[in-house]
Amino acid sequence: MTARVLVPWSDISVPAELDAVVWDGRGAPPDGLDDVEFYVLPYDQGPAAAKLIPHLPSLRAVQTLSAGYDNLLPLVPSGVRLANGRGLHDLSVAEHALALILAAQRYFPRWFAQQRTGSWDRVHTRSLADCRVLLVGYGSIGRAIERYLEAGEAEVVRVASAARPGVHGIAELPDLLPTADIVLLVLPDNPRTRGLFGAAELALLPDTALVVNVGRGTAVDTDALTAEVSAGRLRAALDVVDLEPLPADHPLWTLDGAIITPHIAGGSDSFYPRAKRLAERQLAHYAKGEPLENLVN
Amino acid sequence: MTARVLVPWSDISVPAELDAVVWDGRGAPPDGLDDVEFYVLPYDQGPAAAKLIPHLPSLRAVQTLSAGYDNLLPLVPSGVRLANGRGLHDLSVAEHALALILAAQRYFPRWFAQQRTGSWDRVHTRSLADCRVLLVGYGSIGRAIERYLEAGEAEVVRVASAARPGVHGIAELPDLLPTADIVLLVLPDNPRTRGLFGAAELALLPDTALVVNVGRGTAVDTDALTAEVSAGRLRAALDVVDLEPLPADHPLWTLDGAIITPHIAGGSDSFYPRAKRLAERQLAHYAKGEPLENLVN
Repeated sequence: MTARVLVPWSDISVPAELDAVVWDGRGAPPDGLDDVEFYVLPYDQGPAAAKLIPHLPSLRAVQTLSAGYDNLLPLVPSGVRLANGRGLHDLSVAEHALALILAAQRYFPRWFAQQRTGSWDRVHTRSLADCRVLLVGYGSIGRAIERYLEAGEAEVVRVASAARPGVHGIAELPDLLPTADIVLLVLPDNPRTRGLFGAAELALLPDTALVVNVGRGTAVDTDALTAEVSAGRLRAALDVVDLEPLPADHPLWTLDGAIITPHIAGGSDSFYPRAKRLAERQLAHYAKGEPLENLVN
Repeated sequence: MTARVLVPWSDISVPAELDAVVWDGRGAPPDGLDDVEFYVLPYDQGPAAAKLIPHLPSLRAVQTLSAGYDNLLPLVPSGVRLANGRGLHDLSVAEHALALILAAQRYFPRWFAQQRTGSWDRVHTRSLADCRVLLVGYGSIGRAIERYLEAGEAEVVRVASAARPGVHGIAELPDLLPTADIVLLVLPDNPRTRGLFGAAELALLPDTALVVNVGRGTAVDTDALTAEVSAGRLRAALDVVDLEPLPADHPLWTLDGAIITPHIAGGSDSFYPRAKRLAERQLAHYAKGEPLENLVN
């Protein structure tokens, strides 16, 4: 008795007991999906992938490759298990966080501008080593970033929503902010994080501190940050902002002390091998009747 | 009996037995240097610092803050000890090497170009994780870089002039080059490294491999590399080239697949605290009559 599974890639290992149909999320879904029991959603291909869920009458399990799954819960029928992609993006986000920090500390905007004019003008730069980095948000992405920061001899100060041994609580931020060279935000969007870094909190940072955000844009008041960077008092390196896409005429784009990337920290090559390995493990679990990993319902 | 020392900074600890005179290398040296016994050269301030050496009649020891010292040997009188700055730049160079790699892998030239036009155009990028990195030159800088690369889950293949356990020899490069995603050169300039990466060696690299150089520019044939990058076959991220400064009209400056910084990997803030700590240790050794560290003669 062969069970049918719907997966987004043709180049993964599928247990012999399973019959795989491939759909990468582009174009219309294939025919013959009435007996699909396990559905691995295509990643980052728009809403069609999720909309297919209620149209699979034999469905027993859904695997999303994103960490977030709130948008899927209303679509998953009662009795169907849902597993998420927790951890798949950690390394990609950590890597991009470090790329943003190093680009700012090692003056890459200056070098790229000089490259356009062929100018070999040398100056000494800041560094990451010896910097005191407030790592605000200490989950699995925060821990991946910390390994990089420690390799680079930065001093890491961990901050999370609640204090625990070795980790400061968010309530301590007013005491911690004045001591930071770099503030690195890795926060999800929720009522407690929204607007956490407003004008008052940013004002507590020392002159020329660097604000980096690879979590969700809503944690920072963009107008307040723009004002501080525009005044030359703070620097910023942002993969997320509270209004995305950032409008083309927003003043933040062209400020000297700002580096902006368009919310791409999680989407790099390092994601796919990890996503495929998770899908392979989950299909093997399913074929053997074992519990799935990363269940969220 | 107080011995006089000449140092480039006023904010370091000097043993009570020593009388410090400060000269930062700018402007003319101060008067009253006839009894200077220990001279810490100002860093990266031009040739005047070295030229002073033969004019210090009481000199017994010289500390340079550079790793290289060949230019000083002819100036140091017989019987005067010379210590170098081995290791002081390691972390700064390692950090910049990583900055170059991440800027290339995570498409920073694209993001910086989009920033100038206010474009929020998202694409998935390469990553450093899972890449196979040939680390060519495995001294103290290479080891510092390796810590970063391992934190980022890259696969490091060590290559040095001579094979030893865990390290490939340069003679194995023809077998190793076809397997590399990234080649990271951290080689000194000497007859064995000069021209090591010519057209034939570069041709062995797979399509779209990234060539990074933070050692000395002479290890790579710039014309051959320019041809490969110009053809879109290889990518390059270079802090050094074989002709410095790179002429303003050199085609490498404007190639899509090239990132160029003007030989600044070693000169960042992380250098100075380490240089000052070395100077303080050496002055303490001198005051106690102990042997100096990093002696090269």
